[in-house]
Amino acid sequence: MAGWLPSLITETPEAGFDLAIKLARMGVKKTQPSDEVRARLRGIYEIDAGALIASSQVVAVNFQTIAAANGYWR
Amino acid sequence: MAGWLPSLITETPEAGFDLAIKLARMGVKKTQPSDEVRARLRGIYEIDAGALIASSQVVAVNFQTIAAANGYWR
Amino acid sequence: MAGWLPSLITETPEAGFDLAIKLARMGVKKTQPSDEVRARLRGIYEIDAGALIASSQVVAVNFQTIAAANGYWR
Amino acid sequence: MAGWLPSLITETPEAGFDLAIKLARMGVKKTQPSDEVRARLRGIYEIDAGALIASSQVVAVNFQTIAAANGYWR
Amino acid sequence: MAGWLPSLITETPEAGFDLAIKLARMGVKKTQPSDEVRARLRGIYEIDAGALIASSQVVAVNFQTIAAANGYWR
Amino acid sequence: MAGWLPSLITETPEAGFDLAIKLARMGVKKTQPSDEVRARLRGIYEIDAGALIASSQVVAVNFQTIAAANGYWR
Repeated sequence: MAGWLPSLITETPEAGFDLAIKLARMGVKKTQPSDEVRARLRGIYEIDAGALIASSQVVAVNFQTIAAANGYWR
Repeated sequence: MAGWLPSLITETPEAGFDLAIKLARMGVKKTQPSDEVRARLRGIYEIDAGALIASSQVVAVNFQTIAAANGYWR
Repeated sequence: MAGWLPSLITETPEAGFDLAIKLARMGVKKTQPSDEVRARLRGIYEIDAGALIASSQVVAVNFQTIAAANGYWR
Repeated sequence: MAGWLPSLITETPEAGFDLAIKLARMGVKKTQPSDEVRARLRGIYEIDAGALIASSQVVAVNFQTIAAANGYWR
Repeated sequence: MAGWLPSLITETPEAGFDLAIKLARMGVKKTQPSDEVRARLRGIYEIDAGALIASSQVVAVNFQTIAAANGYWR
Repeated sequence: MAGWLPSLITETPEAGFDLAIKLARMGVKKTQPSDEVRARLRGIYEIDAGALIASSQVVAVNFQTIAAANGYWR
């Protein structure tokens, strides 16, 4: 079974960026597994500039990992 | 189709920095897709020193990735 | 004796992500060893968007380490 | 034309550190292009310990990139 | 004389994680050398979720350094 | 003339850690050059747990750079 993260390899940089977002969200979900609570919190932080920037920071760190894994798609 | 991120390779460091900014903004946009909401939030954080410094931090992490991808344009 | 961290090597990326979460929690536990206090704090931060995003950031940094250790499971 | 970032290569570590600061400031400037607004904000954050530490963090990440680009000036 | 940091090399990942914690604490101690003040602050931040997560982040960055130094104990 | 940062190379890990602290402080000093203002701010943040942890984070990032520069003193 593949699970939610079968590989860090993606075909394109864009797919790699989407995977980075998935990792960032999974990092939240593993701490707060309730879909309902996360949906409620989402309503708050998606209109909070600081939280959105912090989210983008987590995506950036994960994208760094995925880009390295893919040899930067060169 | 190329999409928004066809490659991490840029001709110059300056173009790489601009791409780092694009990645940082895309990290926000993927969480808050509404152009209208993001425009409103922008009005707030662009006059908030802490938010601007945090934004620059996200750009710095993304630039690290892009610079590595480009062999530091040496 | 193996202890809590016998190795950074995991069979799959998914197991590596789980190990990254374990490292993040151990980083907290080493500063606050009381199970009771941590359980109480968990009740607070698991409904706090900022804290959840910050947790995901710690996981992201640890995952970067573990992914590198595993040659990105290529 | 050279632009503001012709190269990541510097002659000395010290010049590399100055370039890291330039990148950090450019990360802010690209989000807030108004010299007047940035000057006003500067008056606030240059007497705010948290903002100064956060600024130093951005410089540190950029310096990491530049130091790697320069083979650590070894 | 060995001092407090004779080497980044440790026998096991677990010892490496403990060293990462030591580095994180030393980073605080060098700015606030008073044992008494640090003990007082510890009473505050060890029951503050945000501070504990931030501490875990510092440990994660230091562990990244130590893991690389040890070739990831492979 | 050597300036304040003649090299990233140090004889020992401990000297490398001290250099990381120097870089962190220089990152602040370049934004707030006034010794008097920095001394005043220091009186505030050296008794603030969050600021001390954030400082330790900046040191950790700089130490990562310096450790890599020194081949981890292996």
